Amino acid sequence: MSADNNNNRKRYSGKRNAKSYSAKRYSDDKRKSVNKAKKNAARPKKPAVQKPSIKVAFLGGLNEIGKNITLFECEGDIVLLDCGMAFPDGDMLGVDLVIPDFTYVEQNIDRVKGLVITHGHEDHIGGIPFLLSKMNIPIYGTPLTIGLLGNKLKEHNLFNSAKLNVVNAGGRVKLGSFEAEFIHVNHSIPDSVAIALHTPAGVVVHSGDFKIDCTPFVGDMIDLHSFARLGHEGVLAFFCESTNAERPGYTATEQTVTHSLDSLFNEASKNRIIIATFASNVNRVQQIINCAEKYNRKVAFSGRSMVNYMNVAKELGYLKVPEGIIIDIDMLNRYTPEQIVLITTGSQGEPMSALSRMAYSDHRKVMVGEGDFIIISANPIPGNEKTVGNVVDELLKRGCRVIYESMYDVHVSGHACQEELKIVQKLVNAKYFIPVHGEQKHLRKNAELALSLGVDKKNIFIGDIGSQVEINENYMKELAPVPAGKVFVDGLGVGDVGSIVLRDRKHLAEDGLIIIVASLDVYDGHVISGPDIVSRGFVYVRESEELLDEIRKLSLDILENCADNNIHEWGAIKNRIKDEVSKMISQKTRRSPMILPILQEV
Amino acid sequence: MSADNNNNRKRYSGKRNAKSYSAKRYSDDKRKSVNKAKKNAARPKKPAVQKPSIKVAFLGGLNEIGKNITLFECEGDIVLLDCGMAFPDGDMLGVDLVIPDFTYVEQNIDRVKGLVITHGHEDHIGGIPFLLSKMNIPIYGTPLTIGLLGNKLKEHNLFNSAKLNVVNAGGRVKLGSFEAEFIHVNHSIPDSVAIALHTPAGVVVHSGDFKIDCTPFVGDMIDLHSFARLGHEGVLAFFCESTNAERPGYTATEQTVTHSLDSLFNEASKNRIIIATFASNVNRVQQIINCAEKYNRKVAFSGRSMVNYMNVAKELGYLKVPEGIIIDIDMLNRYTPEQIVLITTGSQGEPMSALSRMAYSDHRKVMVGEGDFIIISANPIPGNEKTVGNVVDELLKRGCRVIYESMYDVHVSGHACQEELKIVQKLVNAKYFIPVHGEQKHLRKNAELALSLGVDKKNIFIGDIGSQVEINENYMKELAPVPAGKVFVDGLGVGDVGSIVLRDRKHLAEDGLIIIVASLDVYDGHVISGPDIVSRGFVYVRESEELLDEIRKLSLDILENCADNNIHEWGAIKNRIKDEVSKMISQKTRRSPMILPILQEV
Repeated sequence: MSADNNNNRKRYSGKRNAKSYSAKRYSDDKRKSVNKAKKNAARPKKPAVQKPSIKVAFLGGLNEIGKNITLFECEGDIVLLDCGMAFPDGDMLGVDLVIPDFTYVEQNIDRVKGLVITHGHEDHIGGIPFLLSKMNIPIYGTPLTIGLLGNKLKEHNLFNSAKLNVVNAGGRVKLGSFEAEFIHVNHSIPDSVAIALHTPAGVVVHSGDFKIDCTPFVGDMIDLHSFARLGHEGVLAFFCESTNAERPGYTATEQTVTHSLDSLFNEASKNRIIIATFASNVNRVQQIINCAEKYNRKVAFSGRSMVNYMNVAKELGYLKVPEGIIIDIDMLNRYTPEQIVLITTGSQGEPMSALSRMAYSDHRKVMVGEGDFIIISANPIPGNEKTVGNVVDELLKRGCRVIYESMYDVHVSGHACQEELKIVQKLVNAKYFIPVHGEQKHLRKNAELALSLGVDKKNIFIGDIGSQVEINENYMKELAPVPAGKVFVDGLGVGDVGSIVLRDRKHLAEDGLIIIVASLDVYDGHVISGPDIVSRGFVYVRESEELLDEIRKLSLDILENCADNNIHEWGAIKNRIKDEVSKMISQKTRRSPMILPILQEV
Repeated sequence: MSADNNNNRKRYSGKRNAKSYSAKRYSDDKRKSVNKAKKNAARPKKPAVQKPSIKVAFLGGLNEIGKNITLFECEGDIVLLDCGMAFPDGDMLGVDLVIPDFTYVEQNIDRVKGLVITHGHEDHIGGIPFLLSKMNIPIYGTPLTIGLLGNKLKEHNLFNSAKLNVVNAGGRVKLGSFEAEFIHVNHSIPDSVAIALHTPAGVVVHSGDFKIDCTPFVGDMIDLHSFARLGHEGVLAFFCESTNAERPGYTATEQTVTHSLDSLFNEASKNRIIIATFASNVNRVQQIINCAEKYNRKVAFSGRSMVNYMNVAKELGYLKVPEGIIIDIDMLNRYTPEQIVLITTGSQGEPMSALSRMAYSDHRKVMVGEGDFIIISANPIPGNEKTVGNVVDELLKRGCRVIYESMYDVHVSGHACQEELKIVQKLVNAKYFIPVHGEQKHLRKNAELALSLGVDKKNIFIGDIGSQVEINENYMKELAPVPAGKVFVDGLGVGDVGSIVLRDRKHLAEDGLIIIVASLDVYDGHVISGPDIVSRGFVYVRESEELLDEIRKLSLDILENCADNNIHEWGAIKNRIKDEVSKMISQKTRRSPMILPILQEV
């Protein structure tokens, strides 16, 4: 097994370091190549005795999971780092996704030299199409990251205009007064990097997402040498991810999964194997393919994003697929169950995903049942425990064997636990420590780790969305916040759903609505037609006719009373109907549906 | 510490075994006392060579968490075991709670001899007020269980008519051809029991909720002797709870928490301590009070259910409160922070709970901030991880120290893990094994444990809500299902919210609604007034006037076109408006709001 891995590693790293692909693919006239960028780089250093400050604005990723975007400013130049999206919370009803508020970037667009991306996960690149649809910023990333981003931009019809630049891990790119150094790290998607920004104010390092895996399944261990070198030369500030800062110890190596998969393939020798994992976890898919090859199984993919990711990864050489092993999902029935591995999306129990459809017998091509051996090679992201559990329950009801428990070691996290965080913090040895990527509890835990390593409390900054901080050799201080926030994307609408719309959706979701429609005489205000009562989501109408009759009668009384008393101001009439009907309904049902009186003049 | 505990244990078990309280409190003329029930018991055993069957119908608690209710039937007599409620899933919008469908009980009410309750948790007693409002079944439970139930029935104005009977652990009660034996178990609420039903068909045992705690903080260890005796004499079927069947090993003893609390009280010697836990976890509260006494702190309660539970527990002697230690929450400001322990509800992050209100600065009496040391002495119930995390984040933002991680051992589960389940299964040594209380995954895991102990696969039954099974010495077979399901309670309405109402609420929640109102000429169908467009939860209206204008114009065109073409059938007109407006909106926004055309004739 380990000999195999060494071969893979060599093969892959060979491919990764090849510049040919990137140059050929992404260096048309609209896109600066890295080399060009380097030529423009020789700007003279300022001769001032006092080094300048660097200002950092957090447009997302603090006090939230996802939507990572950070803005670095030095000597008038601005560099953006990552531009992600977040998934909506349960109270953001009907919202598809959440992106950063780009106002501050727009206000300073003249000074923005580029956007540097650490890796290809949605919480780091998912906001880019929405950013590029407003302003065309040049983008720099590693080959796979740029490949995945390119795919995404094609879907948004933004690919042809985008200025995409490939930088390999270990490479550098000059962006105004900044020079960005790309440092290889381990994570749950290949080609992840940390970024060191060399600036006139000093060097600041951003970890991106990372873990330390000394024996990754594919590729090299995290480039600790570079972190050590930077630390030795002196780092002003370290922006360090906090996702697993609550977890003691170390994240297990991906090789743990290798051994588990092997023994599960052995155990399931008579079964069809279905494995759900993150579409972006290319190395995990590689392991499954290798296992399939060893046990003479064909591999099919299910789920749109799985197919998309695998196409890009294969094309760029990040996924090595033995000849003839992949079959189309339509070919499944040409093979016996024990000849098949189906790799699918849906490891988070997402309602429309391939695995969910299988569980609820809603998948057009795959029927699951007894004899299926299903492995969920992922942990539920906090908040998804219930949906994942429901999918597991449904699969079990259909008689499938399901491996979902942590005891089976079919998944390892992509993020550094406490001991790893401490190692990298110590290597970087920065003067200022700023935990990023996480909710308050994660940021605090990461800050506590820094404290435990001897960082001065006043040199640690825990920010929020919109926070801005000024850093130089002498001090770190918080500045006035910049415009920042959450912009909701719902269908094609970006930002047209806000707190009022969400409040209404929540109200409607809780107790439904009652519409009271009447036509009034334009002259005397008396009721000509109606009032008619329409309700949705309130009660089962056929069994509540009496209540609806009472509402009609009460509304009619109010309308006639208003007409009799010469009250013709519609706002006042509507408010009276709302108040009195609400009160009556609340007394009779203890519910508060939305009451919508609609009047028409005839 | 352990000497203290022994004292407590003695004191409490003394109180628990005293019959005086129960007799005095619950034996008025409307309620049968246990002794009376026993007198009626001497029904002669059937002389048949072949023993009769026992039929068991599951009205809840299978493939779900909560809403436990099981119906046992033998020789024409019926005994119910537990009658709980469940909390609504995320897709049951606006629903307050879920209760069992009592149809099958109603259909057979003449034969129902009584309802036996295992303990006072909501998932075992929460459905009783809704059951009693339909039929007045005599109820049997241990003192605390009946005390808590009595309190609940008072809120529903059902207390005076209810037939409540106290049976102490170790006691028995005759119910028609059944005799129910109450067996003391450990759980996260005092006075929990398992039930052995002695019937002409043989003995069946229902575990209730339990764990094995050899050193509980208060009271005795689970009565393993009785399980052993029953197993020795022969048990037909064992109905065993499955909540923790996925967890290997043993649940830690409550004493673990004792030591953790002590060291945290030491650590927080300069702080106000706030501890959130389940209101029903009386022994946990006892520990906190004992700690408070040791460290010279006063104790205040926050949260309505905490106050209610503590009153009942104190009154019945299950909570021992040293003189003068409890203060009213209004008195908090008369003490310094280090003189206070505040015990609060909200350990599950429930939005309206005391702890949530503190976190979001919405508590009328308690402001939290720096200097507050907050302990969450509970684990999130699956599905609540996110809300608990949000509350923790908010508390941290206010500068509180928050202890919420499992590493601090401030909580142990109330349910048996795999090794405990196996021990009790082995002791009971039943012929048939029926896992209960849990989702499919829990039931399956518990069944796997039984298999591993040598139970024959055909002697294990995994049921569903509504399943009915017949059991006798020779076979176990599934019968036709009985009426059963989920009844939604929303405000005062029981069962008036069903799938149609929920579907509408979901639709409204996702994309809101658009109402199109017009008054039509009664003679020619032409538009006299309107169409007016009202939208809620769809888009921010002020910024979408153009779109709403287009909807208005399209609707007008359709209405006029219908009038011109003599289409006067309103159903047809409304459908055309719905279809065409939906299509237009979907094209322009990729959203599907509910479209409600309302026409009036003038």
